[in-house]
Amino acid sequence: MQNILFLVADEYEDLELFYPYYRLKESGYNPVIAASKKGALTGKHNYQIQADVTFSEVRADDYVALVLPGGKSPERVRLDKDALTIVKYFMSNGHPVAAICHGPQILISAGLVKGRRMTCWKGVRDDLIAAGAMYEDSSCVVDRNLVTARQPSDLHAFMKEFLNILKLQKTEQVQVV
Amino acid sequence: MQNILFLVADEYEDLELFYPYYRLKESGYNPVIAASKKGALTGKHNYQIQADVTFSEVRADDYVALVLPGGKSPERVRLDKDALTIVKYFMSNGHPVAAICHGPQILISAGLVKGRRMTCWKGVRDDLIAAGAMYEDSSCVVDRNLVTARQPSDLHAFMKEFLNILKLQKTEQVQVV
Repeated sequence: MQNILFLVADEYEDLELFYPYYRLKESGYNPVIAASKKGALTGKHNYQIQADVTFSEVRADDYVALVLPGGKSPERVRLDKDALTIVKYFMSNGHPVAAICHGPQILISAGLVKGRRMTCWKGVRDDLIAAGAMYEDSSCVVDRNLVTARQPSDLHAFMKEFLNILKLQKTEQVQVV
Repeated sequence: MQNILFLVADEYEDLELFYPYYRLKESGYNPVIAASKKGALTGKHNYQIQADVTFSEVRADDYVALVLPGGKSPERVRLDKDALTIVKYFMSNGHPVAAICHGPQILISAGLVKGRRMTCWKGVRDDLIAAGAMYEDSSCVVDRNLVTARQPSDLHAFMKEFLNILKLQKTEQVQVV
């Protein structure tokens, strides 16, 4: 079973974590929650999930893709150097990365949005533009390995596109072998 | 696009409504929320969703399947005669019905569980057994048209099986034509 890494802190947007989490399980992937420390993480709507691993413990090459849920979680995650190192690994290797709502804030801090077609929560749209991204106001934007969406009501489009990219990546890996 | 009906009242379990809701959208279905009256419905975790239609307005044959989310919502829905009439329509016609957590309480009140293989939230397990169901403690139980699950952590299995049944139904309809 292939592992997919989530970078999470408290006050995540609950649906933006749990919809991708269960959706990936449904398709046979193993979602793994990383945080700055182990223990329970509480969402804005008071759901809880346990961190499986800390950012500093993550071996990025154990994972095939990355998910960055939104809410107030990304403002905390972006302050962690190990989290930014993880994001850089996935982006520089062209591995699938899915970021929704405030999730792209982490990509801004990692210096990875310049020239990329992206969307995000409207409240941080100007930050994405200022950092050099080509912002689009649509439910889901796919730019090569990077899938972004605006808000919970985009979740169905967001995961459909992300799963497409994961499938493509798998096919390419098989072809390389 | 095929419509799928949700029967909902306040204090629904938020993930048990929203995971199926977005998941069905992702697969090209149109989820429709029915309640005793129009307006906003608030979940246990304070998410909100608008009721599209009232129970008394529902024309059951406009829908191909039924979803009964859990939480405290089913204890309210089961008191509504129009809601029970709707449930009876789907069950007597063998159309796909998905009930999770406390959702089977509605099926008990409609007198539809006797002799059926089912699961539910452990807190109401004895009610299901007393009403004549063949209870199983597993993440998801499929008995012909009826798919049941225990709790949010079963959502991935629950929707995988429900989508399988929807697909089968579609194939059968095509064959009949």
